Amino acid sequence: MNRNESTIMDPNDLAFVLYDWLRVDELTTLPRFAEHSRATFDDVLDLTRRIAEEYFQPHSRASDLEEPRLVDGSVRIVEGVKTALDAFAEAGLIGAPLDEEAGGFQLPQVVYRAASMWLQAANIGTSAYPLLTTAAANLIRAYAAPELVERYLPPMTDGRWFGTMNLSEPGVGSSLGDLDTVAKRQEDGTYRLRGEKMWISGGDHELSENIVHLVLARTGGAGTRGLSLLIVPKWLGEPGALTQRNDIALVGLNHKMGFRGTVNTALSYGSGAYPVGDGAGAVGYLIGEEGHGLAYMFHMMNEARLAVGASAAALAETGFLHAREYARSRVQGRDLAAKDPTLPPVPIIRHPDVRRMLLEAKAYAEGSVALVLYTTRLLDLVQASEDGSARANAELLVDVLTPIAKSWPSQWGVKADDLAIQIHGGSGYVRDFPVEQFYRDNRLNDIHEGTHGIHALDLLGRKVRLADGAGFALLVGAMTDTVRRADALGSDLAPLLAVRVERLVDITRALWADGDAVSALVNASEYLDAAGDLVVAWLLLDQVLAVEGRTDAFAEAKRLTTRFFFLHVLPRADAQLDLLASGDRILADLDESLI
Amino acid sequence: MNRNESTIMDPNDLAFVLYDWLRVDELTTLPRFAEHSRATFDDVLDLTRRIAEEYFQPHSRASDLEEPRLVDGSVRIVEGVKTALDAFAEAGLIGAPLDEEAGGFQLPQVVYRAASMWLQAANIGTSAYPLLTTAAANLIRAYAAPELVERYLPPMTDGRWFGTMNLSEPGVGSSLGDLDTVAKRQEDGTYRLRGEKMWISGGDHELSENIVHLVLARTGGAGTRGLSLLIVPKWLGEPGALTQRNDIALVGLNHKMGFRGTVNTALSYGSGAYPVGDGAGAVGYLIGEEGHGLAYMFHMMNEARLAVGASAAALAETGFLHAREYARSRVQGRDLAAKDPTLPPVPIIRHPDVRRMLLEAKAYAEGSVALVLYTTRLLDLVQASEDGSARANAELLVDVLTPIAKSWPSQWGVKADDLAIQIHGGSGYVRDFPVEQFYRDNRLNDIHEGTHGIHALDLLGRKVRLADGAGFALLVGAMTDTVRRADALGSDLAPLLAVRVERLVDITRALWADGDAVSALVNASEYLDAAGDLVVAWLLLDQVLAVEGRTDAFAEAKRLTTRFFFLHVLPRADAQLDLLASGDRILADLDESLI
Repeated sequence: MNRNESTIMDPNDLAFVLYDWLRVDELTTLPRFAEHSRATFDDVLDLTRRIAEEYFQPHSRASDLEEPRLVDGSVRIVEGVKTALDAFAEAGLIGAPLDEEAGGFQLPQVVYRAASMWLQAANIGTSAYPLLTTAAANLIRAYAAPELVERYLPPMTDGRWFGTMNLSEPGVGSSLGDLDTVAKRQEDGTYRLRGEKMWISGGDHELSENIVHLVLARTGGAGTRGLSLLIVPKWLGEPGALTQRNDIALVGLNHKMGFRGTVNTALSYGSGAYPVGDGAGAVGYLIGEEGHGLAYMFHMMNEARLAVGASAAALAETGFLHAREYARSRVQGRDLAAKDPTLPPVPIIRHPDVRRMLLEAKAYAEGSVALVLYTTRLLDLVQASEDGSARANAELLVDVLTPIAKSWPSQWGVKADDLAIQIHGGSGYVRDFPVEQFYRDNRLNDIHEGTHGIHALDLLGRKVRLADGAGFALLVGAMTDTVRRADALGSDLAPLLAVRVERLVDITRALWADGDAVSALVNASEYLDAAGDLVVAWLLLDQVLAVEGRTDAFAEAKRLTTRFFFLHVLPRADAQLDLLASGDRILADLDESLI
Repeated sequence: MNRNESTIMDPNDLAFVLYDWLRVDELTTLPRFAEHSRATFDDVLDLTRRIAEEYFQPHSRASDLEEPRLVDGSVRIVEGVKTALDAFAEAGLIGAPLDEEAGGFQLPQVVYRAASMWLQAANIGTSAYPLLTTAAANLIRAYAAPELVERYLPPMTDGRWFGTMNLSEPGVGSSLGDLDTVAKRQEDGTYRLRGEKMWISGGDHELSENIVHLVLARTGGAGTRGLSLLIVPKWLGEPGALTQRNDIALVGLNHKMGFRGTVNTALSYGSGAYPVGDGAGAVGYLIGEEGHGLAYMFHMMNEARLAVGASAAALAETGFLHAREYARSRVQGRDLAAKDPTLPPVPIIRHPDVRRMLLEAKAYAEGSVALVLYTTRLLDLVQASEDGSARANAELLVDVLTPIAKSWPSQWGVKADDLAIQIHGGSGYVRDFPVEQFYRDNRLNDIHEGTHGIHALDLLGRKVRLADGAGFALLVGAMTDTVRRADALGSDLAPLLAVRVERLVDITRALWADGDAVSALVNASEYLDAAGDLVVAWLLLDQVLAVEGRTDAFAEAKRLTTRFFFLHVLPRADAQLDLLASGDRILADLDESLI
C-alpha cells in the first residue's frame, strides 16, 4: 500500500491537522521543544505507524477472539501483545513526552497523541498498556517526591514496568467521594492499604516485570477531601531486585463486549493473600500530600480523557477507512436514475445513501481527530509556553474543552463504526471484516473515564462557570473569530454557525440565571451534545480556512466533508438548543414510579 | 416475580396494546376468528410467555457464548435449543396463525406476533427457527399446489421440519434482479438447481428432521421477472421416509457479532456433494408459476419484515426493562440539589440523565411494539375482513407502514439497548449483565430483510406513490384523525404533531413534483427516519387517547412517555424535514473521489 494511504489512519489528514492547521512546528520555538523539528516529529509518527502496522494490527482480532483468561492464577494473554509492547518500548516511545531528565525526550503532547492514534486504531486493546504507563509516569513525575520519581520512572519509561489507575470500587463508580479503600500511615512513612478496586485496566498480567498501581484511597475524612493518591506496586523492591510480592490479589477478570485485549480486573488490596511483614495491608507510597489525591489523579484523568477521545477518534477513522475501501470495490445495484436492469451493477459508493453514511462517518472521524489534537496542543502551551497569560488562557480553554473532547468522539465515533457496519451490509456483521470489532471496542469509550452524563455535569455544572466563565468566554471568542474570518471570505457556512453560537451563549447564561442547579442541569446531556456539535463545526470550518485558496483534492475533500456536516448534521443541535431554551424540567419533576 | 412484571416483556403494555388500544377481541366478530375469544388469546400469550421463561431464556447466553460450529460436517448447536423448540412445537404454536385445514388454528396474526415477542425477547437466536418455519408454511399454503401443501405443511406446523428463505447470493444482496442461481425444469415437472446462496438463517442443522428451503432461482430471463420460487428440501421423500439427501452442501458458517443462536450459513445447490439421480442439481418443486417468484417471496418477506420489527421491539423492551430494574436498585451519587456529601447515595433512577435514558428507551420500546402490532392487526383485516373496501384500505396502509415498521424499531431498538448499556455503566459492557448481548443481537435488525437504505427507497420511491398515493393518503388521514380527536380534548401535544404531518405531506408532494428520481430519493433515508418519528408520535398519541379519563398509574405512565417523546425526541425530525424541504442534492452531485 502507498505510504499516503492506509486503512488504519489517514496519514494525509494527520499531517494536515498537525502542520497546516495546528502548526505544531511552531512549538519548536519554545525552549522545552527546542531540540525538535518537523523532522523529529515525522520520525516519531512514521516509526509509530510502522510499529502499529507490523506489531499491533496483526494480533488485533486474536486479542478479541481469545480474551485474557486466568490460568493457574496468572493472566494469560495472546501472543503478539508482548512482542508489540516490547517493540514500542524499545523504540523509546513510552516516555516520549516526558522531560529529558525523567528519561523522555520532551516530545510535544500533541505529536505523541497523534502518533498514539496509529496504535489505537491498529489495536485498541494492546495500545492501552503503554498509554496508561505514559500517563502514570507523567503523574509521578509531576507530583511524587524525588526518591519515588527516581525509583519508578526509569523502569516505566523503559517499558519494563507498566502503570495503572485505580479509582472505582465495586459499589462506587462515578461518585468518587464514596470510595472506601483505606490507606493507613505507618511509622516509617509508608502506608498500608485495604480495600477492593474494580474495573482496573491492566490490573494484572505477566507482560511487564512489575505493575505500578496509582491508587486513590482514604487517609482520613469523608468525601473527596479525605482521598490521597498512592503508588502501590505489584512487586516491592528495586528494578532488578523484585523479591517481595505486595499484598494485591487478583479477584477476577471482567469479560467485556469489546476492548478485550486490555485485561480488566477486580483487585483486592490487603486481603492477606500475599502478606507483607505483619500483614497490615498492601504497602503504598504517598504521592505528594494527603488529601490531594483527587487533584493529582485528575492530572492523569485529564490526560486519560484525551486518550479516550483519541481512541474513539482513531477507531472511528479506521472504521471509516475500511468502509470507504469496501464501498469503492463492492458492486451492487444500479444508479437511481438508471432504468435498464441489464446495465452492470455499480460500486456502492455511487449510491447517495452510502455516500451519506461515508461522509457522516468521515465527519465524525475527522472532527474527532481535530477536536482531540486541538485540545492537546493547548496542553503543550500550558506546559511549555513562556507567556504566563497564554499559559493561563490555554489552561482555561483546556478545562472547557476536555469534557467535549472526551465525550463527542466517544459518542459519535461509535456511530461512525455503526455506519461502517451498515455500509458493509451483512458482511459488516460478521468477523470476516473488522468493523464489527471496532463497533464493540469503541462502545466502551462513552463509559470509562467518566460516563457521558458525568461529563455533561462537568461541562455545564463546572467548566462553563469556572473562573467566572472565563474559559467559556475564550471558547466563544475563538469560535466567533473563526466565524468572522470565514464570513469575510464569503463563506455561506459561517452564518449557520454564528447563529447557533449566539444561542449557546444565551442559553448558557439563562440556564444559570437563577443559580438553581436542578433547573440548570436537568438537561445537561443535551447541552453537552449541542455544544459538541457546535465546537466540531467550528473546528471543521477553521480547517476549511486553513486550505483557503487551495484547489487540490485534499482541500476540496475537506470542504465537502465540512459542508456535509453543516447541512446534514449540525442542524440536529437546534432541537437540543430549543429544549434547553424552553426551560423544560420534565426529568426533574416526574414521578419516577411512572417510568 | 409477580405475573404482572417481567424483564422479558411488559405484560401490562402488551395487554393494553392488544385489548384497550387495538381492540383485537373485536376481530372475533369476523368468521375466520369466530372460534376465538379474549380467553383463547390470553391462553396463547400466557403459554408462550411460560415457554419463553422456562425454555428460551435459560440458554440465551449459552447460545451467544458457544456459537454454532461445524463438527464432522454437522452443525453443532448448544443444548437447550432443541428442547425449547420441541416445547414450542408441542404446544402447537408453530402453525397457530394458519388455516385449520392446514393444521393451524386461525389465530389472528396480531396475537401470534405479540406472543412471539416473548420468545424473541427471551432468546432471539432460538426464536428465529419457528418464526421462519411459520412464515415459510404460510407462503406454501398461500401459493403452492395442493400436493405440495399436503406434503410439506403438516410436518412444518408440527415442528418436525423447519423452513428457511434463500435469497442472497455471495455477490448479490439488495439487488435481487442480479441473482444467478439457476433452476431448470425437468420432464417430470420437477426442477434441478445450481448456485450459491449466502446468509441463510437456519440453513443447516440437526434440530429438525428436515429443512424446507424456499429458494429464489432463475428459470429464465434477466432481472426479477426471470425469478421463480421453489421448495428445495434438505431431504427428499415423505415425512417418516426421508432416505435421499438432496444436493445441498453446507459451504460454511458465518460468525456473527450477535444473534449467534441462529445458525447462519452459506449453501451450495447442485455442487455434486450429494448427487441425486444423474447429478443435474438439487431437486426443487416450483411454487405457483414461473416468473412470479419474487412476488411470492414478498409474501414471506413482508411477514419476515414485521417479524424483524417485532424482534427489534422485543429486544428494545427487554433492554429497557433490565435497565429500569438496575436503575431502581443501583445506588450512586446524590441528588443534583444536595449539598451534603454525607447523605446516603440515591438509586440512580433519581438522576435526571438516567431518567432521560430510561424514558427514551421506553419510548423506543413501546413505540416499536405499537407500530408493529398496529401494522399486524391490519394484516388480519387484509386476510379476514368481509368488507372489500376495508380489506383494500388495510392492504394499502400495510404497504406504506411495512418499511417503517421494519426500520424504525430496528434503528431505535438498538439505541434503546445502547441506552440500557449506558445506564448500567461499566456493568453494561460486561457479560455479567445481558444488555450488551441485546445490543449486539439487535444490531442485525437494521441489516437483514432489507437494509435501512433499501426500505427508505421502498417507502419514498414506491410505497408513498403506490395507487396514486392512496396508501399514503390513508396514513395521513389516520394521523390527522388522531390529532383532531386529541385536539378536541385540549391536548397540547396535538399541534406539535399536526404541523409536522402537514410538512411531511407538502414535502412528499414537492419531492416528486418533477418526477426526477434522483432529486426525490437522494435523501430517502432522512425521509424514512422523519416519517418514522411522526408515525410513532401519532401511535403514542393515539394510545394516550385510549387511556383518556383514566388516572391509574398505567395511564399516567403512558402520558409521561408520550410527553417525553413529543418534547425530547420528536423535534429531531425537524432537521430532517428542513433538509428534505431544501431540495439539497449534495449526495447526488458530489465527486465521489473526494469522499
